[in-house]
Amino acid sequence: MSKQCYGVVGLGAMGMGMAQSMVKEGLETWGCDLNPKALETFKAAGGKVAKDVHELVSKADVIFLVVVNAEQVEAVLFTSGAFEKIKAGAVVIVCSTVKPEYAESVGERLAKRNILMLDAPISGGAVKASQGQITVMASGPQEAFDKAQKGLDAVAAKVYCLGKEAGKGSGMKVVNQLLAGVHIAAAAEALAFGIRMGLDPEKVYEVITNAAGNSWMFENRVPHILANDYTPLSAVDIFVKDLNIVLDTARKVSFPAPLSAAAHQQFIHASGAGFGREDDSAVIKVFPGIKLPKGK
Amino acid sequence: MSKQCYGVVGLGAMGMGMAQSMVKEGLETWGCDLNPKALETFKAAGGKVAKDVHELVSKADVIFLVVVNAEQVEAVLFTSGAFEKIKAGAVVIVCSTVKPEYAESVGERLAKRNILMLDAPISGGAVKASQGQITVMASGPQEAFDKAQKGLDAVAAKVYCLGKEAGKGSGMKVVNQLLAGVHIAAAAEALAFGIRMGLDPEKVYEVITNAAGNSWMFENRVPHILANDYTPLSAVDIFVKDLNIVLDTARKVSFPAPLSAAAHQQFIHASGAGFGREDDSAVIKVFPGIKLPKGK
Repeated sequence: MSKQCYGVVGLGAMGMGMAQSMVKEGLETWGCDLNPKALETFKAAGGKVAKDVHELVSKADVIFLVVVNAEQVEAVLFTSGAFEKIKAGAVVIVCSTVKPEYAESVGERLAKRNILMLDAPISGGAVKASQGQITVMASGPQEAFDKAQKGLDAVAAKVYCLGKEAGKGSGMKVVNQLLAGVHIAAAAEALAFGIRMGLDPEKVYEVITNAAGNSWMFENRVPHILANDYTPLSAVDIFVKDLNIVLDTARKVSFPAPLSAAAHQQFIHASGAGFGREDDSAVIKVFPGIKLPKGK
Repeated sequence: MSKQCYGVVGLGAMGMGMAQSMVKEGLETWGCDLNPKALETFKAAGGKVAKDVHELVSKADVIFLVVVNAEQVEAVLFTSGAFEKIKAGAVVIVCSTVKPEYAESVGERLAKRNILMLDAPISGGAVKASQGQITVMASGPQEAFDKAQKGLDAVAAKVYCLGKEAGKGSGMKVVNQLLAGVHIAAAAEALAFGIRMGLDPEKVYEVITNAAGNSWMFENRVPHILANDYTPLSAVDIFVKDLNIVLDTARKVSFPAPLSAAAHQQFIHASGAGFGREDDSAVIKVFPGIKLPKGK
């Protein structure tokens, strides 16, 4: 096998960390993004800059798509015409959170030109991405996992292989986002209620993180509220979108999801009230009659 | 100070472990319960058996009430007339999950006879109770904490002091039960949805417990579902009751709690469908169109 060449489309918070992790591992890695600053940063870190997606896909044997949503996947891969320039036998790794049915449709279209796909949503956040320590929930043919292995090893602490079919990776991500969204909305509901009852919010955090009511999201997000710091690490509008995906997917298979629906309404409320671009913990701002912590 | 004497009213799963933990620490501990078998077990473990609550309260300086709900607290303490027999200066520790306003009312009535109260809901389950390792979320006057200290040390790994006023302990428990109930219902919704999408439920457990969607309850309860074992450790009907308390308390202070309300409906559905006495993870049985794991 001749020397492999990697590509990352989308050098945002996640994609930049992943691309740099591959460079650190000595992999030839091409990046592209609409933001010239991101390209400069990547070049300074030893990456190769493609002038557009067409150039990138004509170079790369393994292409990570780290764009925001299905609309961007569609635009970058198909509307742009890049699809026609991808090398036969290349692997496209779709990392965006998309509906399982959309992941299936991308796989079918790529297969027509003998391009392999991994349906491979990611989680872990920007810090873990910069450390090459994200989690990848992937499904696709074994050949695609094999061809992409060095790249996956470079970016991920853990790669779950969830089956051969596109859709399984995205399905698992949907399950995770369902829980993540419900748990953030529940953390907000519980903390706001505690404040309403006159409890000290710092005490609520201390007790709950040591009790059966704890969740990963409660432990992670409540400190933002206690510090009165709503700088978006992940924004309210991301969960408006991700719970859209959860609920659209659920409807498609006639699956009732009342907790997801209730959480979705809370994020929509927060977005409508003007907090859409704040940290997702700002969903607590929808509750009336409470004084939120002022921070220190 | 003369030798203190302890009492435990209610030798069920939690109370028995707590009473035995005090016996192990060398504290003189009296127990009473309506179930003669529980009394035999406690006697065999070195405990002293009171013939009724009247005898118990006439002996004990510190009385743990470990009964199921507010109705039982009311019956045991007041309707029975035991209230009149409690020693002046004694401490009554109410461990049941009750509404904060009810805890306040008990405290006010006890204060009329100079009896101290700790509003002290517990968590941790039967195993931790038997090891003297429960968590106590308590509020009340410092004098009550001081007088009860040896008993609290014997039963608890951690005692949170949440303020002087009755109601704060119960308020914290309400916050915990809100999260616990929502998280169990969310775990069921997420796992059932994963199964509906064709994901392997064992894989869902593996991925989610290592991802941001995890919760204490997901990690603890999903194994019951995977094992097809709905032997009640805590039953569906407990969460029907506890979310009743959450929502009644919320209504009282005009606090909207949409996720709690959605979770409550799921537990009510499960109870109405005949699963009320099964493990609370049986709330997953409300979802249509899925095949639950058969266990091994």
